Amino acid sequence: MSASREIELGTKFEPKFDANGLITAISQDAESGQILMVAYMNAEALDITIKTGNAVFFSRSRQKLWRKGEESGHVQKVRQILVDCDQDCLILKVKVDQGQCHVGYQSCFYRILKPSTKELDFIAEKVYDPQEAYKKDKK
Amino acid sequence: MSASREIELGTKFEPKFDANGLITAISQDAESGQILMVAYMNAEALDITIKTGNAVFFSRSRQKLWRKGEESGHVQKVRQILVDCDQDCLILKVKVDQGQCHVGYQSCFYRILKPSTKELDFIAEKVYDPQEAYKKDKK
Repeated sequence: MSASREIELGTKFEPKFDANGLITAISQDAESGQILMVAYMNAEALDITIKTGNAVFFSRSRQKLWRKGEESGHVQKVRQILVDCDQDCLILKVKVDQGQCHVGYQSCFYRILKPSTKELDFIAEKVYDPQEAYKKDKK
Repeated sequence: MSASREIELGTKFEPKFDANGLITAISQDAESGQILMVAYMNAEALDITIKTGNAVFFSRSRQKLWRKGEESGHVQKVRQILVDCDQDCLILKVKVDQGQCHVGYQSCFYRILKPSTKELDFIAEKVYDPQEAYKKDKK
């Protein structure tokens, strides 16, 4: 089997990190199927996620590990990890108890594009107050 | 409202293309919620998708527009486009009649990672024969 066929049809996990050492990870609610967010993992974040069962990403803006929920408490318990054909993208099937978008919504995808005007419509209500969740001095 | 707040909380569509001029697009079955594939769009692909209602991507390997289904016939009819908080990722809610992964599966995510051994298990059966779908001389 050729190398690319092996990646597509084999059972060996060979995650393909990009030029920045990152792989795309989609968090999807394990029960509802709702896509919650899209983030990135480096090898270390992926390794910790697999070992601990809690989603850990790599923040591109802060250039460091991002233990989801470390500030807000809004963790993602990883139930399953699915891998795509060319192994450059992962789905994390997760259980969550709280909103996952830092803006305050359950999902980061809270707006829909209107094709006619190319404007955005809001399709969700906020489920928590981010100012409360992210304030530094909370217990 | 600051520029970043405007992007997160506004109604203006300002897709954020990366250094290669691409934005991530997730195709999700509009009915079942199954994530079918993850691909990328440049501005032109996004524009054609919005105008025609058929998913068009930009192939990173071939460096050209990729009209999904142009060879296989396995098109994606776009029902909705959702946009995330920082506008660097899209969900295409699509209607499909046939398998979407070029390997022959309904979804590109046909394997699951076993955390204990880091091996992959297959979780799906093929739904079509790619050799048949992609052969050049078919009518």
